[in-house]
Amino acid sequence: MLGGGSFGTAMAAHVACRKTQLEVNMLVRDSDVCKSINQNNCNYKYFPEHYLPSNVTATTDAKAALLGADFCFHAVPVQFSSSFLGEMAEYVDPGLPFISLSKGLELNTLRTMSQIIPKALKNPRQPYVVLSGPSFALEMMNKLPTAMVVASKDKKLANAVQQLLASGNLRINTSSDVTGVEIIGALKNVLAIAAGIVEGLNLGNNSMAALVSQGCSEIRWLATKMGAKSTTITGLAGTGDIMLTCFVNLSRNRTVGVRLGLGEKLDDILDSMNQVAEGVSTAGAVIALAQKYKVKMPVLTAVARIIDNELVPTKAVYELMSLPQVEEV
Amino acid sequence: MLGGGSFGTAMAAHVACRKTQLEVNMLVRDSDVCKSINQNNCNYKYFPEHYLPSNVTATTDAKAALLGADFCFHAVPVQFSSSFLGEMAEYVDPGLPFISLSKGLELNTLRTMSQIIPKALKNPRQPYVVLSGPSFALEMMNKLPTAMVVASKDKKLANAVQQLLASGNLRINTSSDVTGVEIIGALKNVLAIAAGIVEGLNLGNNSMAALVSQGCSEIRWLATKMGAKSTTITGLAGTGDIMLTCFVNLSRNRTVGVRLGLGEKLDDILDSMNQVAEGVSTAGAVIALAQKYKVKMPVLTAVARIIDNELVPTKAVYELMSLPQVEEV
Repeated sequence: MLGGGSFGTAMAAHVACRKTQLEVNMLVRDSDVCKSINQNNCNYKYFPEHYLPSNVTATTDAKAALLGADFCFHAVPVQFSSSFLGEMAEYVDPGLPFISLSKGLELNTLRTMSQIIPKALKNPRQPYVVLSGPSFALEMMNKLPTAMVVASKDKKLANAVQQLLASGNLRINTSSDVTGVEIIGALKNVLAIAAGIVEGLNLGNNSMAALVSQGCSEIRWLATKMGAKSTTITGLAGTGDIMLTCFVNLSRNRTVGVRLGLGEKLDDILDSMNQVAEGVSTAGAVIALAQKYKVKMPVLTAVARIIDNELVPTKAVYELMSLPQVEEV
Repeated sequence: MLGGGSFGTAMAAHVACRKTQLEVNMLVRDSDVCKSINQNNCNYKYFPEHYLPSNVTATTDAKAALLGADFCFHAVPVQFSSSFLGEMAEYVDPGLPFISLSKGLELNTLRTMSQIIPKALKNPRQPYVVLSGPSFALEMMNKLPTAMVVASKDKKLANAVQQLLASGNLRINTSSDVTGVEIIGALKNVLAIAAGIVEGLNLGNNSMAALVSQGCSEIRWLATKMGAKSTTITGLAGTGDIMLTCFVNLSRNRTVGVRLGLGEKLDDILDSMNQVAEGVSTAGAVIALAQKYKVKMPVLTAVARIIDNELVPTKAVYELMSLPQVEEV
């Protein structure tokens, strides 16, 4: 498991609990987290009140983490992934399947994880699966029922990962639509910021539902042009994940939006957070994608303009409500 | 405005506020509500703390309510609509456009409002529009931004209703897909019961999102076979309304589900409610529709079986989690 954040920890615990004969080794940056996992079976930073299975161990040494691995989960923030993977490329077996848990687009290059990983590892054939769907880490740690999607161009690999992960509390659907799962996973973090703004402005649930519904359409329009399948958009990694991220308070991206809606400055918000909000970086990519694929996305581009300090939230709402009344097409 | 419930009152107030030169006359059953509206500009039963515009009046006399009307809003529960309309048919001008706000299927006949109204009025050509979308009445009363859809086979009429209703705080899209808007509006009330059950069982947000996502797919499969357009399913009257009803606590259908999940008996729940939960009746129609259109709907039929006391909620969850892991198609 590359990364010692909340979702990486929850997934490590899930796999270790599901397959007690396996060792799940987490590569973490923070030596205190490493010690806490190895000595106390606990990631004190993200889950101070949960014990990890005893077959979860940690290391700060990439070479040791990767030695003899059967699968590699990637749970490092998108923006740091290229340099992180580049430094350890020499220890990665060219046949080691990567299972990406990270959602977002690399700033400037607009690349998704399925493009970032082979490029950083200098191996275009590195086996790759993306895992997505509505899954708050805390609820997975508490073994509450959850359902997700694994997508891969390699159907056998998708099935193998399904077998690895599926359990009585985790349903796993398979899919071949890597592009769709990745694009929606990235864009929904931008929509989550918009949902937070609506909450911060106290506009009510009717507005929230209208906004998320419009946002879903915008994501669908763009994702379809980029090659996504419609079943992905309406499935767990699409509507399912979007609903969770937009309607429930726990997400980091949504929290950024709430605080923007309340009038805080973006820099102050980001300075005060100890985790990465991928949506802020991904918002920067939205305007470029909208232009490249010739798609109108009034909600998502409004978020990008708010993030860039070109538009204030109240004005954005007024603009959206003032768009011409339309026929649904 | 036929009906003096919460949504009828909110829509009457909206129209009256938007068009101050119009008189909006509400036909209500309860003479105390009638008096309260006429004497105190207030529907004391549903909105005791809100004033209604002075051009909202009320009557208990159908003939007086319908005399000279330009539009007729229908906000009477679906199950009572046939008999209610049958009794007043003689006062209804055959050219009077009906705007339906009621969502559900008539028990036994499986008819929607677009079929119930012309039949009850014995006029197959009664002009008809259905209005739907994510719209809690209280938020409309508070003039919070809301967006809805009007659907009619008669495009001119849809545009006329759009003009009547659209304002700075209410966006109105038009559509020709009456079937889609009606079927989704009916079935989402059944899904809302399922969402309530998940909350009552305390299964967490991951489960909720997975359930609603699966429910959306089931509604899409059925609605498509019944002739709905895909833009309706993904639009305001589809995903938008489903998200609102399933993720937010205010809805009556969802409340029924929460109490079922907590272990209460259906009869006790219904006895204690002073409003109609359409989803309970509509659930009875789900199994018949699934059979008629040959669609598998595990979530919606589980709700129907719980309502019929054939299945307990915990067993339903276990069954759903135990379905074979699948490929997304």
